[in-house]
Amino acid sequence: MFISEVYLDDIIKRALAEDINYADITTDNLISPNEEAEAYLLSKDKGVLCGIKAFSRVFEILDDSFELQAFFLDGDEIKKGDVIARLKGKTAMLLKGERTALNLLQHMSGIASMTALYARELRGYKACITDTRKTLPSLRALQKYAVLCGGGKNHRFNLSDAAMIKDNHIEACGCITLAVKALREKIGHTVKIEVECETLDQVSEALSSGADIIMLDNMTVDLMREAVKLVNGRALLEASGNITLTGLKEIADTGIDIISCGVLTHSVKAFDISLKIGKAGIQYES
Amino acid sequence: MFISEVYLDDIIKRALAEDINYADITTDNLISPNEEAEAYLLSKDKGVLCGIKAFSRVFEILDDSFELQAFFLDGDEIKKGDVIARLKGKTAMLLKGERTALNLLQHMSGIASMTALYARELRGYKACITDTRKTLPSLRALQKYAVLCGGGKNHRFNLSDAAMIKDNHIEACGCITLAVKALREKIGHTVKIEVECETLDQVSEALSSGADIIMLDNMTVDLMREAVKLVNGRALLEASGNITLTGLKEIADTGIDIISCGVLTHSVKAFDISLKIGKAGIQYES
Amino acid sequence: MFISEVYLDDIIKRALAEDINYADITTDNLISPNEEAEAYLLSKDKGVLCGIKAFSRVFEILDDSFELQAFFLDGDEIKKGDVIARLKGKTAMLLKGERTALNLLQHMSGIASMTALYARELRGYKACITDTRKTLPSLRALQKYAVLCGGGKNHRFNLSDAAMIKDNHIEACGCITLAVKALREKIGHTVKIEVECETLDQVSEALSSGADIIMLDNMTVDLMREAVKLVNGRALLEASGNITLTGLKEIADTGIDIISCGVLTHSVKAFDISLKIGKAGIQYES
Amino acid sequence: MFISEVYLDDIIKRALAEDINYADITTDNLISPNEEAEAYLLSKDKGVLCGIKAFSRVFEILDDSFELQAFFLDGDEIKKGDVIARLKGKTAMLLKGERTALNLLQHMSGIASMTALYARELRGYKACITDTRKTLPSLRALQKYAVLCGGGKNHRFNLSDAAMIKDNHIEACGCITLAVKALREKIGHTVKIEVECETLDQVSEALSSGADIIMLDNMTVDLMREAVKLVNGRALLEASGNITLTGLKEIADTGIDIISCGVLTHSVKAFDISLKIGKAGIQYES
Amino acid sequence: MFISEVYLDDIIKRALAEDINYADITTDNLISPNEEAEAYLLSKDKGVLCGIKAFSRVFEILDDSFELQAFFLDGDEIKKGDVIARLKGKTAMLLKGERTALNLLQHMSGIASMTALYARELRGYKACITDTRKTLPSLRALQKYAVLCGGGKNHRFNLSDAAMIKDNHIEACGCITLAVKALREKIGHTVKIEVECETLDQVSEALSSGADIIMLDNMTVDLMREAVKLVNGRALLEASGNITLTGLKEIADTGIDIISCGVLTHSVKAFDISLKIGKAGIQYES
Amino acid sequence: MFISEVYLDDIIKRALAEDINYADITTDNLISPNEEAEAYLLSKDKGVLCGIKAFSRVFEILDDSFELQAFFLDGDEIKKGDVIARLKGKTAMLLKGERTALNLLQHMSGIASMTALYARELRGYKACITDTRKTLPSLRALQKYAVLCGGGKNHRFNLSDAAMIKDNHIEACGCITLAVKALREKIGHTVKIEVECETLDQVSEALSSGADIIMLDNMTVDLMREAVKLVNGRALLEASGNITLTGLKEIADTGIDIISCGVLTHSVKAFDISLKIGKAGIQYES
Repeated sequence: MFISEVYLDDIIKRALAEDINYADITTDNLISPNEEAEAYLLSKDKGVLCGIKAFSRVFEILDDSFELQAFFLDGDEIKKGDVIARLKGKTAMLLKGERTALNLLQHMSGIASMTALYARELRGYKACITDTRKTLPSLRALQKYAVLCGGGKNHRFNLSDAAMIKDNHIEACGCITLAVKALREKIGHTVKIEVECETLDQVSEALSSGADIIMLDNMTVDLMREAVKLVNGRALLEASGNITLTGLKEIADTGIDIISCGVLTHSVKAFDISLKIGKAGIQYES
Repeated sequence: MFISEVYLDDIIKRALAEDINYADITTDNLISPNEEAEAYLLSKDKGVLCGIKAFSRVFEILDDSFELQAFFLDGDEIKKGDVIARLKGKTAMLLKGERTALNLLQHMSGIASMTALYARELRGYKACITDTRKTLPSLRALQKYAVLCGGGKNHRFNLSDAAMIKDNHIEACGCITLAVKALREKIGHTVKIEVECETLDQVSEALSSGADIIMLDNMTVDLMREAVKLVNGRALLEASGNITLTGLKEIADTGIDIISCGVLTHSVKAFDISLKIGKAGIQYES
Repeated sequence: MFISEVYLDDIIKRALAEDINYADITTDNLISPNEEAEAYLLSKDKGVLCGIKAFSRVFEILDDSFELQAFFLDGDEIKKGDVIARLKGKTAMLLKGERTALNLLQHMSGIASMTALYARELRGYKACITDTRKTLPSLRALQKYAVLCGGGKNHRFNLSDAAMIKDNHIEACGCITLAVKALREKIGHTVKIEVECETLDQVSEALSSGADIIMLDNMTVDLMREAVKLVNGRALLEASGNITLTGLKEIADTGIDIISCGVLTHSVKAFDISLKIGKAGIQYES
Repeated sequence: MFISEVYLDDIIKRALAEDINYADITTDNLISPNEEAEAYLLSKDKGVLCGIKAFSRVFEILDDSFELQAFFLDGDEIKKGDVIARLKGKTAMLLKGERTALNLLQHMSGIASMTALYARELRGYKACITDTRKTLPSLRALQKYAVLCGGGKNHRFNLSDAAMIKDNHIEACGCITLAVKALREKIGHTVKIEVECETLDQVSEALSSGADIIMLDNMTVDLMREAVKLVNGRALLEASGNITLTGLKEIADTGIDIISCGVLTHSVKAFDISLKIGKAGIQYES
Repeated sequence: MFISEVYLDDIIKRALAEDINYADITTDNLISPNEEAEAYLLSKDKGVLCGIKAFSRVFEILDDSFELQAFFLDGDEIKKGDVIARLKGKTAMLLKGERTALNLLQHMSGIASMTALYARELRGYKACITDTRKTLPSLRALQKYAVLCGGGKNHRFNLSDAAMIKDNHIEACGCITLAVKALREKIGHTVKIEVECETLDQVSEALSSGADIIMLDNMTVDLMREAVKLVNGRALLEASGNITLTGLKEIADTGIDIISCGVLTHSVKAFDISLKIGKAGIQYES
Repeated sequence: MFISEVYLDDIIKRALAEDINYADITTDNLISPNEEAEAYLLSKDKGVLCGIKAFSRVFEILDDSFELQAFFLDGDEIKKGDVIARLKGKTAMLLKGERTALNLLQHMSGIASMTALYARELRGYKACITDTRKTLPSLRALQKYAVLCGGGKNHRFNLSDAAMIKDNHIEACGCITLAVKALREKIGHTVKIEVECETLDQVSEALSSGADIIMLDNMTVDLMREAVKLVNGRALLEASGNITLTGLKEIADTGIDIISCGVLTHSVKAFDISLKIGKAGIQYES
């Protein structure tokens, strides 16, 4: 999978420790550890699947005998009633891992599904939709992966891998030109510089200072259109600030390159998927 | 604070490592490490504040000289334009901690604010609103604390601290009565037993088996009302399954004790708060 | 097993790191890494076995080829001379894991065996024996599991999963009634409230305040008997404070529900079990 | 303190996480976070104190304002009724840390006190009492430090810092002589070699092979006496196996150098100390 | 400092745990914990200082009273005999932290000093010297920071923050053009694409495919010169493969933009600095 | 392997997290996760191999299907052109683990190879070469293992496992005799005492005080020779301080027992080994 396995296991083990703590006092007392069961994963909504590997990994960590057969993969569109996967393993472990596994899957599929709505809206436009650093603590990689699965792209992962000059940096250096110059002398050749601009004058200065990317911060659509004209392809232009699904096409229409959107990861609606546990032999609904 | 300090520091350090990785290449290269600044925290929406301690702790970990003066506390109602707190510390650290601190504060305030809407709806009713285990990996304690701040109550924290008998457990034991009996013989005296029921017959059996709490799983409001009559105060009754704000009063009207609701923690809308950094001497808007 | 696998592995890896540090300089220098051996686990005392899974897991972590055949399970009575299990694996790993595995097994079996003595004493009485929070750092889940295997029950696991009102809490609230009331308004419906009482007046107040459990703290047997009469089944009653094996029946005779006892986990006598390593083909003593 | 601070904090943070989990639901709901209290630590038994730094560190981690004034130090003899220390800090934190701090202090003082009984028995003899690797997972350093405070000495900390040749090693090399020779060629000059012997012939061979220390494993006192004569100071002699307080003098009388004893750390009796919380101004009993 | 504080503390705590384990048995037994001392840090060689903050942090973690007065900062040139800093703190902690602190400082200063030799050689040329991912496990951030202090620049930190297309990737996609195209469609707008080329034909294809950076892998100086001509500023050119100090100017002379060099971090020569401990009042040599 | 498996996995997982962070954005986007490849490990230099198990373990952690066939083992001499091992596994995982695996192997083989040069120089002499505590943070066990593979021996691992009396300790106790006496009374019988001496008078005092090992700190070869005569086998003698390959024989000639040398681990030159990835069926060069 895209996300590093070492990283994923770490998240899952913490989540299991959080949810199980010492024991599942119901299951451990009532279900024989050797009992086996089958189960299936049922979509209750329409959207884009994401997190099937993370889901599966929860049970693999708990149960060496666990097997999952996936009928859909990350990035696939699913609709209400679709059987996403078939599972087989120890009943006790299915019960103990269920909540942790579904919490991951529903969150990631929620992000992918919302991103897909934005991405569809942008079909035919040059602009792509990206995430931001407005993510949830410890979950950024999962969330950014889900944005990819939904058809979006990733903005920088962290403060180390791309430079972003904001008003405080500009003020400390005197002007945008000096800030970009000072930074370029220090950062490596693989790192791009983005400058946050609120006016066309700033856009103009950022461009001539050699910024790789220019962020149009909370600008009106009209200003964005002028900025696109002014820059004319000499730097990448990113629209940012209170982006919503309804206003998306109008922004894309300005000719902007990137639209970054915090809501994709900071205000996620869980995607409804349920796990149906049943003994082997049960008829599947699909 | 309510949340264990050791646990909180752990979350914050992981979040900072995720967001900063090795360095903030923009700030570290452009801002003098000794430069100091003031800042203020501005509410952009109406709701309930939560996470001010977590917010503050981010900067305390980064900067020994950091100081925060809070004008509102967790659980307080805030409205658009309110200055929530005043901050003072190293400019570089304010910039490096900003995103991590806001991500925490906005998520927690989002939960508290949504919970407050549910709690207000229930004013005058016996029923209280509670969370579920449908939380985000590693963030359960923060999320459940936010539910409290919003006026909700907490359902069980994990699989260790309360028993919940579901259909698979019932099936494994033969019937509800045997499941409750088997469990009671093994669990400690501080632990309550809850039984998930889909029919009135099950409710009846759960009651006579001595269950402490009976969950009415996806029942109609009419069925709930009958269940309340049937149980007549001899056990706690919990309504669960696709609870929404609009249907809340109707459910509460049945006389139910608890309404548990996954949406409070699995589908959180971030609360809009922004951090304004400015040199000492700036006039505050409040 | 009852104890979460993720948690168990964590304990074992820390214990192995503590005991092996970088290398077993004797074994690593003298024993070929490919040499294989059989071994058996011999009981040297009479009591109740506990920890066979933890014991086995130590070697599984060190050696993929390790196999264990258990003749007794956790909770089984064993006597001097019993062969508890047969092992097979790399000689070097048997030697490297031996101490860590035995330390766990002997400690857990020691707890189970001591608990069994208390539990046997209570046969025929309503009262059950429980542990306390007087456990050893990081080992609580293992210790509490061992109490279960010995026929005891578990008191609360931690400060999150049940409320216990003590004198400082009472003092802060003014009286027991106000403390219980204040708490009930805040805690969730799955959480029970226990009140520590030193006098019958306090018992009486705790009862009418609606406490779920009343702890009789260091009361004389006569006082306990009066408390049982007074409460008459309307709350659970727990005897606590300097409980010893000899006085147990007299306390149980009062009609009390629970007897909690710190000695089970804070003053454990290791159970004598030894690991005999021998090449395959050796005759077992059993 | 003797034990590395980094290591100690790690143990305490894990213990606090185990005991508090997310919250102390009683204290956090009933005690104001700003309320302050004094408290004192009262000895309920006679023995040797150990762990006052670990005890104090628990509260320091929870409460920046915490202060402790110690009247006794690690290694000091204490008797019933002695006030060991005076504490001052946030009431809530005193209550939240109490159990964790006492669990550490009582366990460590239990070890120190038992060791002191053994050490006193050996007064006037050449022999000293030492611990073994029969310790509790993750607690070895604390336990071995407590042995020191009780007047004992430490055997090797782990498998890396001293070599111990046992029967399996001897068998793999052919004989003691070859095992010692093979090992000496590989280990560093700071590492001593100890050989486990069951017969005088083995003692004799171990001696001539150049072993630094010879362990007399489960030998009778008569055999030990002969071994002492045979070795005559040319190597250190260690008695091991089922050492008890009653037989100690007889063993010491043989002229042996070291007596190692698992019971000091694997079968610890907690030392009775209690924490009395009271508001400032309260009269102390001492 | 440039390196994230959270990350730095983590490294130092691991290093202290490694070096001290449970105790410094010499110092803890012979030096009073309250004894204080002064000390000074003496350069024994000529080069560039790096790591003074990491050095200081080791002692701050061990000793709250520790103070350091630095006469030189990271990046400063130092020569034999220079007193780099003056220290003051608990004698025992100075002794316990000395090795860990010096190991860090000598390694980092070694890197900075070697990098400075390369950087000086490139003075007057466009080309800059950069590091690679040939770093030591867990130490990459420290090592890359040291390269910066020596006047070099950083290549990508990890596999997440810049794309590097190598022969296996090209083969999997069919050709460079298809690989760059496939990648550009998936990666975010902040990420640059670098292509590893061994021939001028590859350089030509990489250029027209829109690669941001072209790595000339093990090319002769003549080939490099042709590549520079061919590319003519339309992409960044990086020379890589067995770069040594002696051949540096010749390579820079080709007009290349970046020269990346593994030796800076994979073959570090420790810089000789010693810590002289003395009681307060001692005359400094400087 | 010699190094504890638990410890090794820990290092590797940290190194992978450092190098991969969230994703290998090039490989994850361009290489099918199911594609398989063979590869071989090629020596580019002459020396001693070390780290083949660590190298292999990197890929085992990433890829369950990974297989490695080793033609040389740790400690074997290799020369330019030798094929060290053949590998088989998922192409994507070979690419993702390559750098981490090689960084470990090249560093460890670099140490083994340099140590071998020192060890060869000492052939025929009593003296052996040992490492020091001048190692790199978190890597000490790997580095010390590599010294062993190169034919050297290990000095103490950490401050816990052997005592080393330096000038500050001597000063605190008054004289060497008192320092050794004080220490001997406190440390266990498995621990040796080494005393750092700068003059023959100190050597003489250390000897009569009963030190096990005497370090001759920065002495001239003439002084060393006198020290050897003076001690005459009654204690081990260690030469230390600026040891280089060229002066080694002259030192050994004095009759000294141990020569300790920081350069082996603090100034390592990476050994050149490369990984050649190719599809199955490729002809190997060997």
